[in-house]
Amino acid sequence: EDIRLIELPKIPDPRGNLTFIEGRRHIPFDIQRVFYLYDVPGGESRGGHALKTTEQFIIAASGSFSVVLDSGTTRQRFVLNRSYYGLYVPPMIWRELEDFSSGAVCLVLASAPYSEADYYREYADFKQAIKR
Amino acid sequence: EDIRLIELPKIPDPRGNLTFIEGRRHIPFDIQRVFYLYDVPGGESRGGHALKTTEQFIIAASGSFSVVLDSGTTRQRFVLNRSYYGLYVPPMIWRELEDFSSGAVCLVLASAPYSEADYYREYADFKQAIKR
Repeated sequence: EDIRLIELPKIPDPRGNLTFIEGRRHIPFDIQRVFYLYDVPGGESRGGHALKTTEQFIIAASGSFSVVLDSGTTRQRFVLNRSYYGLYVPPMIWRELEDFSSGAVCLVLASAPYSEADYYREYADFKQAIKR
Repeated sequence: EDIRLIELPKIPDPRGNLTFIEGRRHIPFDIQRVFYLYDVPGGESRGGHALKTTEQFIIAASGSFSVVLDSGTTRQRFVLNRSYYGLYVPPMIWRELEDFSSGAVCLVLASAPYSEADYYREYADFKQAIKR
């Protein structure tokens, strides 16, 4: 599956809006892990890794930030600033998170439990793996 | 399983903190559905329903709010105001969300896809079902 923005269902309500995501319905994988970044100082950056097999879906549940995705040959930049949009990131894509707004919450759904063995932490290692 | 607050892992970092949740590891069910409430005006209330079979885990990913849980015989109130705590709510518990802070994000993980047939929307119907 390819990198893409996915628009999510939004149930508007003056008491607050609601957005929902079901595994294999709105995103192409089962949700094995949920994590979120919070208390991020405004302007901060984060990330700089690729995953060998894990798929992720990244949402700006609050505030905004940018996601830079690098396939090894092309680089794309996505600004996430709406709670009802998310970015699908397949395996073997280098990602960096940038330009967090103060108080932003980055919500990530992942297709697998955490495993350090699934990470490329060095860009050079990722590049070499892509070439193979 | 009983109603309880669960402390989640927190990876502190000056660039922002990270908390993660894996189904059947940190919470007692597989994550079939994720939803979140956002753009909630400060002071707003929400909820007023029970679920017949669905388990939920409720987190204040940003800001704060209160959760009132009613088993039909006892009523408990929980204030959620830390991103690394969540409230496990078993089936057949009436819940109400109250006192949202401005900009709060209520993140909910659920054990089943959405099904309107799983809801009690009227407290009287819930009370009657509990008595049976």
